[in-house]
Amino acid sequence: MNIVVQKFGGTSVRNLECQRQVMQKVLRPYREGNKVIVVLSAMSGETNRLLGLAEEWSDNPDPAEVDSLVSTGEQISCALFAMLLKQQGVKCRSVLGFQAPVKTDCCYGKARITAIDESRLKCMLQEYDILVVAGFQGCDDHGRITTLGRGGSDTSAVALAAALKADVCEIYTDVTGVFTTDPNLCSDARKIDRVSYDEMLEMASMGAKVLQIRSVEFAKKYNVTVHVRSTFSDEPGTIVTQEDENMEAVMVSGIAYDKDQARITLIHVKDNPGVSAQIFSPLAEKKILVDMIVQNPSKDGLTDMTFTVPRADVKQTIKTLEALKYEIGYEELSSNLNVAKVSIIGVGMRNHSGVASKAFRALADENVNILMISTSEIKITCLIDDKYTELAVRTLHKAFNLEEGKHIE
Amino acid sequence: MNIVVQKFGGTSVRNLECQRQVMQKVLRPYREGNKVIVVLSAMSGETNRLLGLAEEWSDNPDPAEVDSLVSTGEQISCALFAMLLKQQGVKCRSVLGFQAPVKTDCCYGKARITAIDESRLKCMLQEYDILVVAGFQGCDDHGRITTLGRGGSDTSAVALAAALKADVCEIYTDVTGVFTTDPNLCSDARKIDRVSYDEMLEMASMGAKVLQIRSVEFAKKYNVTVHVRSTFSDEPGTIVTQEDENMEAVMVSGIAYDKDQARITLIHVKDNPGVSAQIFSPLAEKKILVDMIVQNPSKDGLTDMTFTVPRADVKQTIKTLEALKYEIGYEELSSNLNVAKVSIIGVGMRNHSGVASKAFRALADENVNILMISTSEIKITCLIDDKYTELAVRTLHKAFNLEEGKHIE
Repeated sequence: MNIVVQKFGGTSVRNLECQRQVMQKVLRPYREGNKVIVVLSAMSGETNRLLGLAEEWSDNPDPAEVDSLVSTGEQISCALFAMLLKQQGVKCRSVLGFQAPVKTDCCYGKARITAIDESRLKCMLQEYDILVVAGFQGCDDHGRITTLGRGGSDTSAVALAAALKADVCEIYTDVTGVFTTDPNLCSDARKIDRVSYDEMLEMASMGAKVLQIRSVEFAKKYNVTVHVRSTFSDEPGTIVTQEDENMEAVMVSGIAYDKDQARITLIHVKDNPGVSAQIFSPLAEKKILVDMIVQNPSKDGLTDMTFTVPRADVKQTIKTLEALKYEIGYEELSSNLNVAKVSIIGVGMRNHSGVASKAFRALADENVNILMISTSEIKITCLIDDKYTELAVRTLHKAFNLEEGKHIE
Repeated sequence: MNIVVQKFGGTSVRNLECQRQVMQKVLRPYREGNKVIVVLSAMSGETNRLLGLAEEWSDNPDPAEVDSLVSTGEQISCALFAMLLKQQGVKCRSVLGFQAPVKTDCCYGKARITAIDESRLKCMLQEYDILVVAGFQGCDDHGRITTLGRGGSDTSAVALAAALKADVCEIYTDVTGVFTTDPNLCSDARKIDRVSYDEMLEMASMGAKVLQIRSVEFAKKYNVTVHVRSTFSDEPGTIVTQEDENMEAVMVSGIAYDKDQARITLIHVKDNPGVSAQIFSPLAEKKILVDMIVQNPSKDGLTDMTFTVPRADVKQTIKTLEALKYEIGYEELSSNLNVAKVSIIGVGMRNHSGVASKAFRALADENVNILMISTSEIKITCLIDDKYTELAVRTLHKAFNLEEGKHIE
């Protein structure tokens, strides 16, 4: 039994006309003799409408009830789409999270998939040629409905593909694939044909919002090949898959950026063991996502600690740390909201030297000052003044010849 | 464990303000120490909105998908109401059809309840004080969602009350109870305090649309006492319960009417054995609901056969019977769309004579001609010219002193 998994987002199923277009995509693998698992999101706007009701009804709505509420969005889109297919004479049915079943933990609102009972789905695939599965939702051990968090339908699709050992997991979206950088910033941006899971993870977390991060983690863990492509065109998109030799030959695959950043510096922190924990534990408790962290070498037992947080969390961060000023023992706190991150990503960096120096040189040539640097095996991130973001992205894109599509050194 | 079941319709839960009013009704038995099962319908208008989508999507939507679609209506109202209660500090949760579980057959759109697993609900009642159960929905043996048909939430409530041996099943509606006749037609109409299941069945089927017929059948079968009352007032409503001596002392409990009627007559039917089956079987196959049937005595081997059907089915009825004219063997078919049924209902008729003659006399005094008569143990129905409906109802209501509330002979 050849199985193809296809996932369509809210924009793709937002009305009858769009669903008819989606149907053509779904019927292709079906007519080629494949069994098809179609994973759908709620019609666009519906999830927000339902969350709006929850807010109206309660200041602090019960998360389990919110999940039962918002899961109706996918229930509706799946029932309607199954009606469309059925009218074409296709043997098909809708499958809700509890029916598949997609088992999750009971962290309502951001549940994690713990198991998918592939035997029941395989059994349904004996009887039906297409299963229209509600994305984003599952059920816990008590049979209560859970949801996987925003963008969770991508994760649903990848998890189903993993459980059913599908040939491919196609994620349909409103862009034609993953680009070397944001085409809105850089007209030379080029679609990438193949990208590794790790690169995709770095790009996704940096704001190239094509695929939900957790779905990529899932794909990596279970080695599911994901094909990101457009609902509104037939051209091939980007294959997200295991790292291979071709990818390693490429030094840099893309440039990502993130403007939603602010920098906080604690000046003259007493450099005692455990001081990092004293700073970052209270922030973690407040669910503030600290990203880049840089600590200068200690001098006279004092050090400077700099890190970035999302801009929306700056006030809360400052308030939290000022309350702990004497406990932590620092002299001064400074903050800067006008910063942005620019990142160079590529698995090829593992085997190529000189990426960092080339990047720094290119930025220096354009007088872009680097405020902070942090590096990982496959990524170099620079914090810069946010007014230079577009310039920096274009400069780096050009410096690594990403527009040429033959950026192999 | 004392259990109270309360059911609220779509009008009662249509917005936040109404749901807050409903909450006050629910908190009363809760504060008195009872466990409460609240059965809710979808917010008014929602079911029709969803059915509209189904019609837009498909000329002939798959019934199983329609059920999955429309069941979201109750899912939403229950999640929202549970949020409200939870905010009051009540230990509560929403319970969907598949979670209860309310097991049904797989007649999607008009499923019948086959079993309710009271052990799981009892188990939930150990942990929670109030369960907000989605009415109208269940699931079949394959775990697919089913719905019970329009008004099915009443049946859900009665079935839950039966399964859990609840002390009482309160059906909240927008009227204060069951009336001796339609108060819109007859200003003297009076609320009935107690009515038997059988009387309620006759009234419901005659258009006194307070309770769904099937819920009354269910209540009768499992001897559940139902209290029909208003969401918007505190006065006691009507108790629907087993027949008792007081009820039998009352000769007539109410006057019902139904204007959605048409009369069909087959003239000079050959009076052979099996001719009735020849006429009514083809109509039953077309799902046409034939109601009153009157056959005149045979003369020269010929008889006239008269019956009523809903007005919407007249064309179909005539078409069906004309196609069978020679097979059945009748001379002529006549029809009349301007007819209405008026019924006198009362378990007391079993022990009182003279009800029919009194009714006929009263109608004759007002020059209302009776076109057809049919009687049962507890009901007398007259077919009349529909322009006399209001007059006939008021006349009969007066003739049996129903306005006085002491209509005991």
